[in-house]
Amino acid sequence: MAAEVHVPGSREECLARDAADPLRDVVARFHKPPGIIYLDGNSLGAMPRGVAARLGDVVEREWGHDLITSWNKAGWFDLPVTLGDRIGALIGAAPGQTVVTDTTSINIYKCLHAALSLNPGRTVIVSEAQSFPTDLYMIEGVVATTGAQCLLWNRREAIESMLDDSVAAVLLSEVDYRTGALIDAEAVTRKVHEAGALMIWDLCHSAGVLDVALDRIGADFAVGCTYKYLNGGPGAPAFLYAAERHHEGARQPLTGWWGHARPFAFERDFAPASGIRKFLCGTQPILSLAGVAAGLDAMVGVAVSDLRRKSQALTGLFMAHVDALLGPAAEIATPREPDRRGSQVSLKFGEGYAVMQAMISKGVIGDFRAPDIMRFGFSPLYTTYTEVWDAAGILSECIESEPWREVRFTRRAAVT
Amino acid sequence: MAAEVHVPGSREECLARDAADPLRDVVARFHKPPGIIYLDGNSLGAMPRGVAARLGDVVEREWGHDLITSWNKAGWFDLPVTLGDRIGALIGAAPGQTVVTDTTSINIYKCLHAALSLNPGRTVIVSEAQSFPTDLYMIEGVVATTGAQCLLWNRREAIESMLDDSVAAVLLSEVDYRTGALIDAEAVTRKVHEAGALMIWDLCHSAGVLDVALDRIGADFAVGCTYKYLNGGPGAPAFLYAAERHHEGARQPLTGWWGHARPFAFERDFAPASGIRKFLCGTQPILSLAGVAAGLDAMVGVAVSDLRRKSQALTGLFMAHVDALLGPAAEIATPREPDRRGSQVSLKFGEGYAVMQAMISKGVIGDFRAPDIMRFGFSPLYTTYTEVWDAAGILSECIESEPWREVRFTRRAAVT
Repeated sequence: MAAEVHVPGSREECLARDAADPLRDVVARFHKPPGIIYLDGNSLGAMPRGVAARLGDVVEREWGHDLITSWNKAGWFDLPVTLGDRIGALIGAAPGQTVVTDTTSINIYKCLHAALSLNPGRTVIVSEAQSFPTDLYMIEGVVATTGAQCLLWNRREAIESMLDDSVAAVLLSEVDYRTGALIDAEAVTRKVHEAGALMIWDLCHSAGVLDVALDRIGADFAVGCTYKYLNGGPGAPAFLYAAERHHEGARQPLTGWWGHARPFAFERDFAPASGIRKFLCGTQPILSLAGVAAGLDAMVGVAVSDLRRKSQALTGLFMAHVDALLGPAAEIATPREPDRRGSQVSLKFGEGYAVMQAMISKGVIGDFRAPDIMRFGFSPLYTTYTEVWDAAGILSECIESEPWREVRFTRRAAVT
Repeated sequence: MAAEVHVPGSREECLARDAADPLRDVVARFHKPPGIIYLDGNSLGAMPRGVAARLGDVVEREWGHDLITSWNKAGWFDLPVTLGDRIGALIGAAPGQTVVTDTTSINIYKCLHAALSLNPGRTVIVSEAQSFPTDLYMIEGVVATTGAQCLLWNRREAIESMLDDSVAAVLLSEVDYRTGALIDAEAVTRKVHEAGALMIWDLCHSAGVLDVALDRIGADFAVGCTYKYLNGGPGAPAFLYAAERHHEGARQPLTGWWGHARPFAFERDFAPASGIRKFLCGTQPILSLAGVAAGLDAMVGVAVSDLRRKSQALTGLFMAHVDALLGPAAEIATPREPDRRGSQVSLKFGEGYAVMQAMISKGVIGDFRAPDIMRFGFSPLYTTYTEVWDAAGILSECIESEPWREVRFTRRAAVT
């Protein structure tokens, strides 16, 4: 997938690479606070410059002036599906299979119930102990109120070891949120299907940055958030993908009026909508959906393959420069092979929390995940090679200048 | 509750009443499109003038500049509880019992499950066929995945006729969304408790306009939306109230990470938060929550009792003037007694859809609910007596000028 590319060996080379970057004009679509190198777009994406104007229009004209007529005239009622299709285009989903709605957690709940309803007689949900915790918590919620059970896979084992004819569904994150390790979604989906189970992908750390191909690999369901690499704004509503072949049969219990076949007939009995809308529930937060629209607008004309290529180059550069500065003592938890990682680089470091605070005070923003992971996310839309070079330098400085380096690190002579 | 007040008998009297209105300065806090009389605030509240500035600040400074630090620094993470407490003050709930989160539909689902968990051995949920449909649909979702059953009450019968020791919970709307009829929440709650069941109130058409007293009447749970009389903006997140005495025992299956006791410890197993936060699930839409904050800001210094008094006066004026113009032929479906109605007036009229379209073309915006209900909502925050007078006149004109009047209405001579 990724061609071997030359890794810049100097700041000058990084500047040249930025000047030649096919995405260089896209960087300007985002607001970047002066003096900040923002490497936390895997937690909250940066603000597209167009968002304030768009929200102003939604508020002043659509809400303030046009009032309730905007449910139709401004397309508010259809936003979950129109935005869903735009995200679908980024994750390899043909139209009509993706909605933007609710939260990742709630969408996981819907998908788990849907998968159980499609696989009657099977009761086991397989997931991974290293999943982002809310995935596991939502499984617990399903387990507590149904006859389902949960088994946790350790990915050092083959996935097949978990799969028998009791397994209804497998829920996994394509990218490990701690280490950035990427799973082979196509191979796993195939094995899950061979065992007669359904595959639910959590794409929180994939959408907008990986070449996801849900239809092609035959995924059954997927969820993900829009506020990371899709830059939809803080807590922006999540997305849910359901393969068309499951639309008729799937049942999920969050059967609110937005999932009704005829919501404005105000009928007494629930009748599910026929397509992807059956995964909608209640009235959706339009202002936050406008943020999702602004985030997608900032990606117009950008090919996911270009994002993936730049993302691999940025993460590769960061690792190479950290290696050069800190040597083997820097314990990089992220796979070195470009095709086995997402768009982040993680370092395991016992004092990582303190180091991250020191970096933030010097203008480099990453984050820390307990117990010992420093995470750096690289959004290829707005991160430059030069920033990555500088960030590695500041990471090195922060580690070198602190007392714990004496015990934990052997400094390289050249750096002193 | 409502003192008998003189109903204005002329447009001049309405102008005088507006000039003397203790809420007259509050009207200016809202944007009202020129030439429009907006009587649909029971569907989507009007836009507070402060919202664009507030959202601009949230976007440009909190998101754009401060980025992830705003989760703490700007209080994003606590918004569900800080906004919840502000709404709590409007619905008679002491702090720590209300959150703003998700949708009314999803919050109903949580409350139903919580009530069932608190009442083991009881399996019946009682509701009303005339409920807003999503309430019934969410009950269906619970029924489909648990051992619960649903029984529908007809409010012409005594509620006691529905209550026995199989009933776990009763879910009712305080205000009927079609007719505006108000139920005696205190008396119903008492009877439900006498039967050992728990009471869940849907306050969608109550919050911000009725003197709700959840703690005093001993309600167990309540839900409601923020985009009607609370003016939080299109699809703004809903609220959920849970009486403190239930916090420890209640269980609900939407156990996402925002409901965890230690969300940022990223633990593998779910441990519910100890207070009202256990009713949170996933990451919340901050831009839409900022709309809720702006809506509440527009109510600062306003006493709910003043809102209720003006609301009763506005609805009374509308009915009186419609009566005067159209006579007994106008079939008003809303109770005449001020204490038995919410803040809307509904007319039953077979051709109501066409009449409403005609009114909208003349600048009076109400709405229509199938099969034959014309609804007019009166937000006392921004609706004037003069607008109500004029709206009744335009309603009369639209009915009088259309062909169906010949068959359906006997015009009063004075109006011709």
